[in-house]
Amino acid sequence: MPLDRPLSPNSKPCFGLTLGDPAGIGPEVAVRAALSEEVRDVCRPMLVGPLATVKMVAALIDKDIRVHRLVDGSYPPDEVHENEVYAHAVPLNGKVHTGEASAAGGRAAYSSLLWAIDKALGGQIDAIVTAPLNKASLRKAGVELPGHTEILAERCGVEPDDVAMMLYLPPGDPAVGANGLGVAHVTLHQSVATVADCLTTPAILAKILLLDEFLKNTGVAKPRLAVAALNPHGGEAGLFGTEEAEVIRPAVEDAGSAGVIAEGPLPVDTLFRRTLAGREFDGVVCMYHDQGHIPIKLVAFDRAVNVTLGLPIVRTSPSHGTAYDIAWTGHADARGMIAAALTADRLYRYSRVKQAG
Amino acid sequence: MPLDRPLSPNSKPCFGLTLGDPAGIGPEVAVRAALSEEVRDVCRPMLVGPLATVKMVAALIDKDIRVHRLVDGSYPPDEVHENEVYAHAVPLNGKVHTGEASAAGGRAAYSSLLWAIDKALGGQIDAIVTAPLNKASLRKAGVELPGHTEILAERCGVEPDDVAMMLYLPPGDPAVGANGLGVAHVTLHQSVATVADCLTTPAILAKILLLDEFLKNTGVAKPRLAVAALNPHGGEAGLFGTEEAEVIRPAVEDAGSAGVIAEGPLPVDTLFRRTLAGREFDGVVCMYHDQGHIPIKLVAFDRAVNVTLGLPIVRTSPSHGTAYDIAWTGHADARGMIAAALTADRLYRYSRVKQAG
Repeated sequence: MPLDRPLSPNSKPCFGLTLGDPAGIGPEVAVRAALSEEVRDVCRPMLVGPLATVKMVAALIDKDIRVHRLVDGSYPPDEVHENEVYAHAVPLNGKVHTGEASAAGGRAAYSSLLWAIDKALGGQIDAIVTAPLNKASLRKAGVELPGHTEILAERCGVEPDDVAMMLYLPPGDPAVGANGLGVAHVTLHQSVATVADCLTTPAILAKILLLDEFLKNTGVAKPRLAVAALNPHGGEAGLFGTEEAEVIRPAVEDAGSAGVIAEGPLPVDTLFRRTLAGREFDGVVCMYHDQGHIPIKLVAFDRAVNVTLGLPIVRTSPSHGTAYDIAWTGHADARGMIAAALTADRLYRYSRVKQAG
Repeated sequence: MPLDRPLSPNSKPCFGLTLGDPAGIGPEVAVRAALSEEVRDVCRPMLVGPLATVKMVAALIDKDIRVHRLVDGSYPPDEVHENEVYAHAVPLNGKVHTGEASAAGGRAAYSSLLWAIDKALGGQIDAIVTAPLNKASLRKAGVELPGHTEILAERCGVEPDDVAMMLYLPPGDPAVGANGLGVAHVTLHQSVATVADCLTTPAILAKILLLDEFLKNTGVAKPRLAVAALNPHGGEAGLFGTEEAEVIRPAVEDAGSAGVIAEGPLPVDTLFRRTLAGREFDGVVCMYHDQGHIPIKLVAFDRAVNVTLGLPIVRTSPSHGTAYDIAWTGHADARGMIAAALTADRLYRYSRVKQAG
């Protein structure tokens, strides 16, 4: 950001909403988000996934919903009836059973995502909002990358160290203050045993800079960042680990030299209290997945938005998973998907301002 | 528990309240707890630490407080004036400056703790409630063990695997339900890089059984336990680590065979939501320090009580640290120390019932 790509030929931006794994709650939350007035106010939602899946889930939600198939290169019109949704169809080859991982589901989800990424890179759509994938389905489909973040980095041609997965609570969320809160992760989908070896000063610095840039992009003039320690008690002065002194602190110092307001490494058990109850920080850089996910999912389970930082495109998603246990019951909660679309709008509008400037 | 030791020769039990590191807030919270009506209702509090420290902090709190020195073998009387506290004096050899780690402070804290442990083992006092230590002071004093839990295990002659550090929110705490919540840790004061290698099925099983026993001892007839996964997404079916399948699941199964109601391994980002918002579990076994400390300190920072499970004596403490930044200002919050004393009472009473039966 600013995004180095053209913009879609629409009066209102077009956001691609991928259905994710067909066996999970992804199709339902995507269609519900596409029907949501809040989402339609800011964009033209384009569903991306198997057409039969869209039609089935639409019927589950409300039998009066009309599903329009978009041919390649066409867009949802400016004026859309409240019961209409528009979809770009992706093939579904094989059987998918509700609540079960499958190669067919993994392939469809993966194809939908790649199509949306390519269209966003080409400027045919303006942002991607992705419903949850299932990692076991991906694996069955022969996809080795563990999740959205990694697939997005590879397809966009960005080095893994140059992107970051962030959980975001936007301004207005009851758990955070007027600046919102971004929690970026240095490592993500890997075992705890391998985390320490993957932490490097350049990797941590890169995430600090991405988070700082993101917050500035959302209107926070001087973001106050915290950088988490890896070890208990922040390593207790080296007694419980040396990563704080050897790897993390240098990154915080480098960030300071670059003009970023960053404090750390800080022990995480008190850091999140300071952040959420004390509102001392606008952003936190975490060293591993659960360090950031435990507190954010605890205070804002279905409201946190997953944003991929460092991509040349805008991409957001809800932070929940496929929820196979309640899939296709018609009871999925689309608030996370809707929040993701509204955050995509925030980022999209910023990119427009930057490009115009 | 039941505790295999004699009881103190008092009409009301005598609890030893160690001052912890003299440079921190420990002396203040210990004296405030000893003055608290709630604490005096359940026990005779006996402060344990340097006499000069007790007198100085008493004067800081209220110049009218009278400090009585107890000779070895004597106890606070049944009737105590509201402005009187009783202390067993431990030598302070060397200088201690407010808010600074020191060998003298470490030595005094360590001696106080050992004295209290020995008296509890001998049945001269009935429980120990410990104010916070400073690990750097301990280190300067030549103590290699990293914290209370480890020192307690060694002095009591219990193998490290047979004790567990637990954060406890008692019934009545606003964050939990009628059964309270215990969060026990399999590993504790060590670097994240070394955690996976320290997890074994017997060690995990031992902590599950300790937690189950503790909850039963506090009156929860059928404790519902959750066992945390180590890795993100619970290892994602082996993609992000094999500890779940190879080490943790067998421990959960063994616990089930032993009649314990335990579920797991469960991904921790949703587990704590299920536990705290959903009240699905009465106890959680965590694999490492921050896994349990992040959520509990977030929802109940100054209220959680630290309990050492598996000891032949009753020992509790507040979950906060020495708070050097606000030490000796007279503004320390003693609620954690008071909650720790009340939890000690709960455990002490149980041990009496068991011994009588």
